[in-house]
Amino acid sequence: MVGISLGDPSGIGPEVVSGALRRRTVSSALIPVLFGDAGSFEEDALFRRFTRCTPLTLPKKVSAPVACEVTRLKASERRPGKPSLAGGHAQLAFIRAAVAAAQAGKVTALCTAPVSKEQISRTGTPFLGHTELLADAFGCEVLMLMDGPRLKVALATNHLPLSAVPGALRTAKLVAQLSLLSRSLKPLLKRRPVIAVCGLNPHAGDGGFLGQEEEKIIAPAIARSRALGIACTGPYSADGLFAQNNRLAFDVALAMYHDQGLIVVKALDFSHTVNVTLGLPVPRTSPDHGTAYSLAGRGEASVEPMVAALLRAAQLARGQVPAHLHYRALKASEGEPSARV
Amino acid sequence: MVGISLGDPSGIGPEVVSGALRRRTVSSALIPVLFGDAGSFEEDALFRRFTRCTPLTLPKKVSAPVACEVTRLKASERRPGKPSLAGGHAQLAFIRAAVAAAQAGKVTALCTAPVSKEQISRTGTPFLGHTELLADAFGCEVLMLMDGPRLKVALATNHLPLSAVPGALRTAKLVAQLSLLSRSLKPLLKRRPVIAVCGLNPHAGDGGFLGQEEEKIIAPAIARSRALGIACTGPYSADGLFAQNNRLAFDVALAMYHDQGLIVVKALDFSHTVNVTLGLPVPRTSPDHGTAYSLAGRGEASVEPMVAALLRAAQLARGQVPAHLHYRALKASEGEPSARV
Repeated sequence: MVGISLGDPSGIGPEVVSGALRRRTVSSALIPVLFGDAGSFEEDALFRRFTRCTPLTLPKKVSAPVACEVTRLKASERRPGKPSLAGGHAQLAFIRAAVAAAQAGKVTALCTAPVSKEQISRTGTPFLGHTELLADAFGCEVLMLMDGPRLKVALATNHLPLSAVPGALRTAKLVAQLSLLSRSLKPLLKRRPVIAVCGLNPHAGDGGFLGQEEEKIIAPAIARSRALGIACTGPYSADGLFAQNNRLAFDVALAMYHDQGLIVVKALDFSHTVNVTLGLPVPRTSPDHGTAYSLAGRGEASVEPMVAALLRAAQLARGQVPAHLHYRALKASEGEPSARV
Repeated sequence: MVGISLGDPSGIGPEVVSGALRRRTVSSALIPVLFGDAGSFEEDALFRRFTRCTPLTLPKKVSAPVACEVTRLKASERRPGKPSLAGGHAQLAFIRAAVAAAQAGKVTALCTAPVSKEQISRTGTPFLGHTELLADAFGCEVLMLMDGPRLKVALATNHLPLSAVPGALRTAKLVAQLSLLSRSLKPLLKRRPVIAVCGLNPHAGDGGFLGQEEEKIIAPAIARSRALGIACTGPYSADGLFAQNNRLAFDVALAMYHDQGLIVVKALDFSHTVNVTLGLPVPRTSPDHGTAYSLAGRGEASVEPMVAALLRAAQLARGQVPAHLHYRALKASEGEPSARV
């Protein structure tokens, strides 16, 4: 049972979830439990066939696709491409309902469709991103991993103004992140993952000429982590590290900030890169595109990112690994799953 | 006549220049004027055939390849992979000799092999990079452009600690940079280039939630530039902008800082991306790799980046455009040049 929050009801979330769930590879891999608006369900031919419930009536265990009505917006409040204040409230409520279902053991993984930070923030609730909300809701230290076929990159800091990044780096926190990353990927790789750690500054500080954070914060974190048995190296100049030949030398990179990591994974393979939150008691994935208001309601948005996110959520949920280790040792094929989750 | 500084004599510079000049496409495109150490010339079979001179005896006009001896290091001072203090002085002297030759009109373009900032700085001369040295030597405001087959990105700031980047952005400077970029690329494209401007913060500040620089500095620079007739738009979230589909929508991007621009161009095509300095009275190019001490003297380093840099220098030098416009309207083929430069 993968809990799927439909995201901004005026964005492309409902239609890409519907499109993805029509794929046999997806529908045979998981039982979807949707969290969204009644109107989004009624308008979609696939969703109309799902068993309808509310958060209060969601059964403990489901055996067929479920559409859980979290809100009943007016049509004017969920027009494609026209976000509304009520829609801002609604998309946050979808996530919260999905989290509650996960905490109650009613879903075994989460996959979140895109929300608008701006629309949620208009409701008066500060919102930095799914990753931050989930960390808070589950009371966990989490790590965001962009998991793509050609590159995997985790982020030491995430939604911060660039000016706040240098001050946010701490040696102890980097050690904890490297440890979580290593533990989380080990079941996937069946060995200790090799982690490459980026520097913060251009040329990783160039021996101190372009910044001190590498010597004072990052290098000590790498040394301490290695002493703990974590296979990490660096700090590396990020522009050199992500050049093609060098990408072969590591399993996953730890970038120091949002754009340092996300620019390269999105440039290399946007459609198949999945945003994974490590550190939660249930795996959570999401595609990394936004609400795409300009495409909403037109059926033109690509469903590939949502397909990849749903399949990865199902794969992670099937993993019989301890709660803090969300990765299943995936078969090289990653093809047809053996059972629906 | 392309002036070529050989870079760190203990790095891969001399060998990749030699390897590149052995290619017929390169040797037929330009007449090289090398600036390096006597020992590097004597050890190389190709360089031994070049006319030897010193900076004082370099003729005003050359008609065959020239090797200009700037230094005479001991063999112990230029061992491959073993940088020396004397080598630090030497590599800086090569650049200065090449600049002097350009200022005297003896070369019509510059191509620089990699130096070590650390080794040059050990000599007591502060050195941030070729781009900064050339700006100072020629007394120009310059702009660094990474010019690749799949993506062109210019940098609003370059070799600065990350913590200094937000404070270094100025609206007026961005307007001047956008103007230089537009003027420089127009002859290449035969129309106004479309410039996409990156934000500084994640998600380009996300409407102000993740930083104010977009609203206070970058957006006003875009508005002023557009009023001047420059075809620029933004600020865009950099991770989204560089995703494949979006790269088709612009000719060149202006990134706000080093890693924001360089990570993506190097990840997409390291070997064929050339570092071009815009704004100088002579075109200057360089490959964007480093001294690669671990490969030096082994003949294993790829010559492709130097081939691309030399060809681009020759193409730019042939352009009959005003001194501040270094781009020649390149033929789509970019194949055999009509004459040697």
